[in-house]
Amino acid sequence: MIVLGIDPGYAIVGYGVVEMKNNRYRTLEHGAVTTKAGTDFNRRLEIIYDGIAQVLAQYHPDAISVEKLYFSNNKTTGIGVAEARGVILLAAQKARVPVFEYTPVQVKLAVTGYGKALKPQVMEMTRRLLCLREVPKPDDTADALAIAICHCHASGTALRQFLR
Amino acid sequence: MIVLGIDPGYAIVGYGVVEMKNNRYRTLEHGAVTTKAGTDFNRRLEIIYDGIAQVLAQYHPDAISVEKLYFSNNKTTGIGVAEARGVILLAAQKARVPVFEYTPVQVKLAVTGYGKALKPQVMEMTRRLLCLREVPKPDDTADALAIAICHCHASGTALRQFLR
Repeated sequence: MIVLGIDPGYAIVGYGVVEMKNNRYRTLEHGAVTTKAGTDFNRRLEIIYDGIAQVLAQYHPDAISVEKLYFSNNKTTGIGVAEARGVILLAAQKARVPVFEYTPVQVKLAVTGYGKALKPQVMEMTRRLLCLREVPKPDDTADALAIAICHCHASGTALRQFLR
Repeated sequence: MIVLGIDPGYAIVGYGVVEMKNNRYRTLEHGAVTTKAGTDFNRRLEIIYDGIAQVLAQYHPDAISVEKLYFSNNKTTGIGVAEARGVILLAAQKARVPVFEYTPVQVKLAVTGYGKALKPQVMEMTRRLLCLREVPKPDDTADALAIAICHCHASGTALRQFLR
């Protein structure tokens, strides 16, 4: 199973492509679609859409895993992030790839076994599970990989329950 | 000048195509892209994107006019509306049509001359300016036409200032 994890935003969209086979993880790719401040906002949405569409076309993932969106106090930023998320969901739909959403607690629980784990702990466990030498940069990319692991974990659990 | 006014949402996206020529308005088309409750949300985004892209391809507007987004207390609905707005902005960008945003007060002021006009007054003035027999239904479509008039009005003012 190949899972594309995405950490949405409009300045940086982190992504990571993870393959799970025989309960082992392998990172196929990780990176970020970035758009510069000062660029026309609709052009930024286009760069994000095209960037994610390209990753989808290249890796044909079985699923996309994203974090559930909650609004922070900064409502203006929140609108931009949700608009960017909209074009990411559209790219998924156009590629006919199902999207699964997880809360931050679910991600932490899946990666570290502890729902209140701190960010550095989540990042270090992500690095270990994926056998990477270093924690990927930027943080958005590391987050995206953790979200991908979360879906693999949830699917594995579901599969085990099914086989019981 | 041809302007496409849009009232974003994810259940109903109202739209109206208005032509302004010699300070007179003509309605080229008005309607709504609707998506059914219970439909997969990402599929709803696709229906909205494809619907707006089709209107853009048919009428080649010079500008798109949309209302500025503010979040209501219902944050969950707000996220969905912003995600839908994101795919509408993407459709505009893909068609290379510039987008202009107006506040509700600007729309009321442009259509009725009074920034605190009530909804029925805005709708009736929209109907008269566009020489329509009846106020278009649903409300989202009437709103979209008012937003289109607002941009025509703003552009006209700018043009007059330019020619002074």
